[in-house]
Amino acid sequence: LCFVGECCCLAETRQNGSNPNIIIMLMDDMGWGDLGVFGQPSKETPNLDRMASEGMLFPNFYTANPLCSPSRAALLTGRLPVRNGFYTTNAHARNAYTPQEIVGGISKDEILIPEMLRKAGYVSKIVGKWHLGHRPQYLPLEHGFDEFFGAPNCHVGPYNKTFRPNIPVYNNSQMVGRYYEDFRINRASGESNLTQLYLEETVKFLRRQAASGERFFLYWAVDATHTPVYASKRFQGKSQRGLYGDAVMELDDSVGVILKELKTLGIAENTFVFFTSDNGAALTSGIQAGSNGPFLCGKETTFEGGMREPGIAWWPGHIKAGQVSYQLANVMDLFTTSLSLAGLPVPNDRAIDGLDLTPVLLNNTIIDRPIFFYRGNEMMAVRVGLYKAHYWTWTNSWEEFKQGVNFCPGEDVAGVTTHTQEEHTMQPLIFHLGRDPGEKYPISVQSLEYQRVLKQITPLVEQHKNSLVPGEPQLNMCDLAVMNWAPPGCEKLGRCLTPPESAPWKCEWPH
Amino acid sequence: LCFVGECCCLAETRQNGSNPNIIIMLMDDMGWGDLGVFGQPSKETPNLDRMASEGMLFPNFYTANPLCSPSRAALLTGRLPVRNGFYTTNAHARNAYTPQEIVGGISKDEILIPEMLRKAGYVSKIVGKWHLGHRPQYLPLEHGFDEFFGAPNCHVGPYNKTFRPNIPVYNNSQMVGRYYEDFRINRASGESNLTQLYLEETVKFLRRQAASGERFFLYWAVDATHTPVYASKRFQGKSQRGLYGDAVMELDDSVGVILKELKTLGIAENTFVFFTSDNGAALTSGIQAGSNGPFLCGKETTFEGGMREPGIAWWPGHIKAGQVSYQLANVMDLFTTSLSLAGLPVPNDRAIDGLDLTPVLLNNTIIDRPIFFYRGNEMMAVRVGLYKAHYWTWTNSWEEFKQGVNFCPGEDVAGVTTHTQEEHTMQPLIFHLGRDPGEKYPISVQSLEYQRVLKQITPLVEQHKNSLVPGEPQLNMCDLAVMNWAPPGCEKLGRCLTPPESAPWKCEWPH
Ligand SMILES: [Ca+2]
Ligand SMILES: [Ca+2]
Repeated sequence: LCFVGECCCLAETRQNGSNPNIIIMLMDDMGWGDLGVFGQPSKETPNLDRMASEGMLFPNFYTANPLCSPSRAALLTGRLPVRNGFYTTNAHARNAYTPQEIVGGISKDEILIPEMLRKAGYVSKIVGKWHLGHRPQYLPLEHGFDEFFGAPNCHVGPYNKTFRPNIPVYNNSQMVGRYYEDFRINRASGESNLTQLYLEETVKFLRRQAASGERFFLYWAVDATHTPVYASKRFQGKSQRGLYGDAVMELDDSVGVILKELKTLGIAENTFVFFTSDNGAALTSGIQAGSNGPFLCGKETTFEGGMREPGIAWWPGHIKAGQVSYQLANVMDLFTTSLSLAGLPVPNDRAIDGLDLTPVLLNNTIIDRPIFFYRGNEMMAVRVGLYKAHYWTWTNSWEEFKQGVNFCPGEDVAGVTTHTQEEHTMQPLIFHLGRDPGEKYPISVQSLEYQRVLKQITPLVEQHKNSLVPGEPQLNMCDLAVMNWAPPGCEKLGRCLTPPESAPWKCEWPH
Repeated sequence: LCFVGECCCLAETRQNGSNPNIIIMLMDDMGWGDLGVFGQPSKETPNLDRMASEGMLFPNFYTANPLCSPSRAALLTGRLPVRNGFYTTNAHARNAYTPQEIVGGISKDEILIPEMLRKAGYVSKIVGKWHLGHRPQYLPLEHGFDEFFGAPNCHVGPYNKTFRPNIPVYNNSQMVGRYYEDFRINRASGESNLTQLYLEETVKFLRRQAASGERFFLYWAVDATHTPVYASKRFQGKSQRGLYGDAVMELDDSVGVILKELKTLGIAENTFVFFTSDNGAALTSGIQAGSNGPFLCGKETTFEGGMREPGIAWWPGHIKAGQVSYQLANVMDLFTTSLSLAGLPVPNDRAIDGLDLTPVLLNNTIIDRPIFFYRGNEMMAVRVGLYKAHYWTWTNSWEEFKQGVNFCPGEDVAGVTTHTQEEHTMQPLIFHLGRDPGEKYPISVQSLEYQRVLKQITPLVEQHKNSLVPGEPQLNMCDLAVMNWAPPGCEKLGRCLTPPESAPWKCEWPH
């Protein structure tokens, strides 16, 4: 069927691992400690644990922001939210995202992974939650994706459609229904078959791509572990952990199905898969929250519990099985790494925060680099080696806290889990995350160790701050008129709603 | 060399797994979360993680008491400390142990694992820390062990010998030196080659036993992770976690050496190995403490952090590789299980708290049973299925706490981590450890779930309490005259010290 020379070259190319398919599995609010391999006591994630044993585990993997939208924008652009515009300047150090009333979204000036991969002939699909803006110009197909099955916003609801429309579900460019109306989520029982729907869409896509031989990028952004947490009938009551655990088990099962499908289709050795989550477990949800293992606090905070994520890389025949990488890495590296795997250069007209992890993946080398922890427009902390320096500490306000919003339930570290924004820029709190992964014991300012570390960290922070050009903030304005009243495709379904008059306001971001 | 019939029978016997050698690896103050397989972020225990992947992991394994001596007494007798006498009645719900000034020790009326195994022809050795009494009548060779290399008490020190002798190290019935004098522990650097010494003794014993073909019981009770934490030169600075982590890595390495030696000697398939720890990580040691993973508090408390222990069973060819057992199990089960493996019945003249785990090990069955959590003379809590009911809560007194003794650093759960002894016997605090392994969210007393669970738990607790006959408490009296002034063998070394006049007092147990 081919000349010997060609076959050799093709085989060689594949052996060198150039241009594999790429799958990014991004969980929603799943915590570092939710996987058996990361110490969840119930040990209910056999497929993820096996994925780790067949691949490379990253215990030091981070998100770029402790909230959905900015984290996802960073992953897809390779840039910090403060650069790509996914932040707010309405108040200091506030988490912001894309609720329905948000006016903004991902800027057309940003370059997303699928836009780049398209140049190398990849077909790209997103399955699940987008969260980079729901207005027409912000939707996935306008930003490089060829296919979209999922929703532009979180699956919260149900809403009374006169005040707030339910979130639409899209199939490519058209709305095909709405959550709670056509795509059921039972708030009382937590039952929904969405994860199964997403899995079907995924398997169908994989089979089609394998048959066509076209390279693909799959962004599998499932959201069953985000409140309202859901699981399908078959998984309900399966977990020792309640509904949240059922959702984890269903996603773990999906991971198993997908990896098995890759093997069955004979494309496992030509498909790079990375599993992670967009932010730490939402401990505010109390008993229904995930686990951040031994780490402090959770979602919304720049403590380890908010920022440290599970990370597993899998690529049989290329990534050696059973490895642990101590590399400090983050979701933005998936941008640069994906481009590298596809043989593409990174855009050179802008700052890119992501690193190319291929040397780490293929040779388990370590690249020295800092990790910056942002909350909105403020660099709150930085990690360098095993040390982490906090320049600002904040959980949430006393007002919120007294109303029962607790980002650190059961935890209380004096001077660390503060309820006022505490500035430490002149003398950061420094923790050694090896000895003290829970950020409980700030290193004494008087110690030689503190002085040595501060001297090492300071120039990295200065360099970062001095060279940082913030992008135009996209998450400042809100307007009820921009909600999902009449998404494209609503006419065909006869499901268009009438928006109110436009009346924009500066969004309030309380924490 | 043998008749076919004989060979067959022998082979068959071995295949059925009867009478294997038994090794119990008991760590000191190592926490559940200190192993990679249980989520330690630094992932520095490759040998233990491999042991788990080759054997059976027990995420629900417990000690019988959150302190060294009672835990060890329970393991070796199969009985709760309140039965075997390893508790105090000097005050309510106090942890007690065997410091040098303790008058008591393990009663001659108790039956220890090696005493039983001797009947089945086993040779028994203890390597490491005994902690069941240091006066001559309490030493290991008086209680069934054939060999002893280690010390009767903790390796704290150094002491000024006029006020307090240093702890002796024994080789069998004779003292061969003392800690800080002959067996060095550098308090400044944390360097000591004790773990290597213990490993040498162990390997020598294994080789000798393999050569002789005599069955053996090895109780490997190493103590490098108990303060003062130590590691040998080769392991110092190796861990991301500091000295504590170095100690863990050295012990992990020893585990690797021992399991490999069993394979090399050809006796792996005929040796049952169980790895665990005597109590949770001593969080009072702050930055030098181990990790209890997602669990609440640590050593000295009956919260999960004090009682939940790593548990790994390994027996190639008999225990299937890569299993997780959800069995609720504890150190006392190792008594009954060891006897069962040796083909011996348990003593029928006394209450035995341990269960025979062989059906769990060989068939991964689940045996329904409660786990009782004691602190001194009080049953503080009970676990039944995924539920845990606290009848008493206490961390330590306000007086101690204000002096900086903190059993739950960084943690504060209102009404749970109490600093006064809080009685809840009429209405226990109930937690669901699946949804809430960190014991942060007591189930509402008004809920149907609470009522249902209480109804299930109450008769089990009543039955336990009604049938419990406390043993004679052994840890009530102290006397400076009984310290290790002149251990057997000191004459030969010219190292006997003169004890003061006997002046016994009721020991003070502050927590
Ligand atoms: Ca999220
Ligand atoms: Ca101990």
